[in-house]
Amino acid sequence: MSQPHAATVAEVLVWANLRGTDSHGVSRIPRYFEMIEAGDLDPRAEPRLKTESAACVLIDANRAAGPVAMTAAMAAAVARAKQAGIGLALVRATTHTAALGYYTLKAAGEGVAAIAASASIPNMAYHGARAAAVSTSPLSVAVPGGELGPVVLDMGSGIVSIGRLVQARRQGEPIPEGWALDDAGNPTTDPRRAEIPLPMAGPKGSGLALMIECLTSLVVANPILAETVGHPVAGRRHRQNALAIAIDIARFGDPGAFAREVDRLARTVKALPRDPAVTEIRMPGERGARTCEKRSRDGIPLPRPVCDELACAAEKLGVAMFPVPA
Amino acid sequence: MSQPHAATVAEVLVWANLRGTDSHGVSRIPRYFEMIEAGDLDPRAEPRLKTESAACVLIDANRAAGPVAMTAAMAAAVARAKQAGIGLALVRATTHTAALGYYTLKAAGEGVAAIAASASIPNMAYHGARAAAVSTSPLSVAVPGGELGPVVLDMGSGIVSIGRLVQARRQGEPIPEGWALDDAGNPTTDPRRAEIPLPMAGPKGSGLALMIECLTSLVVANPILAETVGHPVAGRRHRQNALAIAIDIARFGDPGAFAREVDRLARTVKALPRDPAVTEIRMPGERGARTCEKRSRDGIPLPRPVCDELACAAEKLGVAMFPVPA
Repeated sequence: MSQPHAATVAEVLVWANLRGTDSHGVSRIPRYFEMIEAGDLDPRAEPRLKTESAACVLIDANRAAGPVAMTAAMAAAVARAKQAGIGLALVRATTHTAALGYYTLKAAGEGVAAIAASASIPNMAYHGARAAAVSTSPLSVAVPGGELGPVVLDMGSGIVSIGRLVQARRQGEPIPEGWALDDAGNPTTDPRRAEIPLPMAGPKGSGLALMIECLTSLVVANPILAETVGHPVAGRRHRQNALAIAIDIARFGDPGAFAREVDRLARTVKALPRDPAVTEIRMPGERGARTCEKRSRDGIPLPRPVCDELACAAEKLGVAMFPVPA
Repeated sequence: MSQPHAATVAEVLVWANLRGTDSHGVSRIPRYFEMIEAGDLDPRAEPRLKTESAACVLIDANRAAGPVAMTAAMAAAVARAKQAGIGLALVRATTHTAALGYYTLKAAGEGVAAIAASASIPNMAYHGARAAAVSTSPLSVAVPGGELGPVVLDMGSGIVSIGRLVQARRQGEPIPEGWALDDAGNPTTDPRRAEIPLPMAGPKGSGLALMIECLTSLVVANPILAETVGHPVAGRRHRQNALAIAIDIARFGDPGAFAREVDRLARTVKALPRDPAVTEIRMPGERGARTCEKRSRDGIPLPRPVCDELACAAEKLGVAMFPVPA
């Protein structure tokens, strides 16, 4: 992988760790190596512009690293939005997009409202079905803010994330009813058997995931779900499609007034009477921003197994690794 | 209201009844009259184009009827999408948008993928807060289909709709924990006291609603939530802001192939092993399409109280009403 592309991937993964989204951080690196070895991720691929107009582009990622393709896509969407008011970038045949909030938040820093979504292989149940049929398709929306900073929503469409199921398994804690199915499609509360998360709010979560497959994969003629659902998992190749939309706020009004209104909305909501079960009412992305501040100052705590895996990969590749404290 | 505008409102309301979404049908008419009397809905207003570019428009609805403003907005978004690949229409100061699926589905009939969302006064809890702070902001996404027809998702961001709470109240059935708060912000399972629905999947539902307020109300400089949250309900004026986005599928690939892929995806998902609790696995909008077929043939069953209210309104206005069967 070229140095600039490797730097982009590193930037996006470390950002997720800084924000506290460790499931999308450097712990993914060994999996990225597997994807390269399997031929699913092409480290030398350059995303190519295919279709282009004043307001939109189609980028063929050619199996490039997701962060490389998505960074190019969001930059293209922002550039189009500055010209045309709104910009759309569709991304075909990318790989793991990593944390979508990175791209939307970066775009918000350039004065646009940004939306990103991605479609992947089936790993979540469809409402009413007893099998993985849609992906946990993430959706992120970010807007610039004022003194309190930008607001960024970054959510999957499952009732619970796969990362949370893995955590329950590790800790051996039973999961609530309605969270997951086992491998055979039966509802389970046993964390060792929970494999397939259920969609949030039933038909809403799986409906949203299905529409994201239509808006990305089917529009760019690279269907994922219909190609994989009902086929053996073993032969599946990792692939994703995605989209990025940017809306130029300055086209419709004064960006300074917009920023002040975002602050006012945040202050209004945060001052509401609180559910005693929570310590604070938070804006979307507020916890991540606070973790980022803390971790940028104090460092990122990495579990020993992740360090070991990274050290092992570095050794295999003959590259230097910063010394890990004992 | 001019005859064409009145016809548009009637078309959108009757469509909701045909689809089985009776909560958004003609039962709203008496409420629309109240809005006109209160000065919240201006029956003579003409939506005006304010900002315009190759890819986007800002429409000031000037308190016109929601269906009039949204029909104009989606038509503008579709026209821009045909030119520029993507089209955005922002709608400022509209009134009750009615069922968003009407506009996205109509747009899908013109070969685009369509998205619509709207923001309204606070009527749903924000995650962690014990008060209504965001609206149940609906989101609709539709794509053209093939033999099986288009797919249309139309969802609110609450764990349950206000219509469903009203139904539970009418039937006196207790509601599950986690569905609603009472007027004072306390969790309740008593259908007579349930007033404020909780967001779907906690922070996801209220986060989505908050972002819709930012993307619509704040971009068009007509904030609703920050103006109303914490203020007495009595003095509140009804108002909404909205957006419509259209993406021209033909710009990125063959529309015939797209339609076949939507069908293939639907067939794949519908053929999955089924949860014994459901009779069928359905696409978003499939039940509505089937109800529409049946009701277009057999008529729309209207509850007697709704008929009586409509007859009363007609008499008051001195307009003829089709005879209601005894």
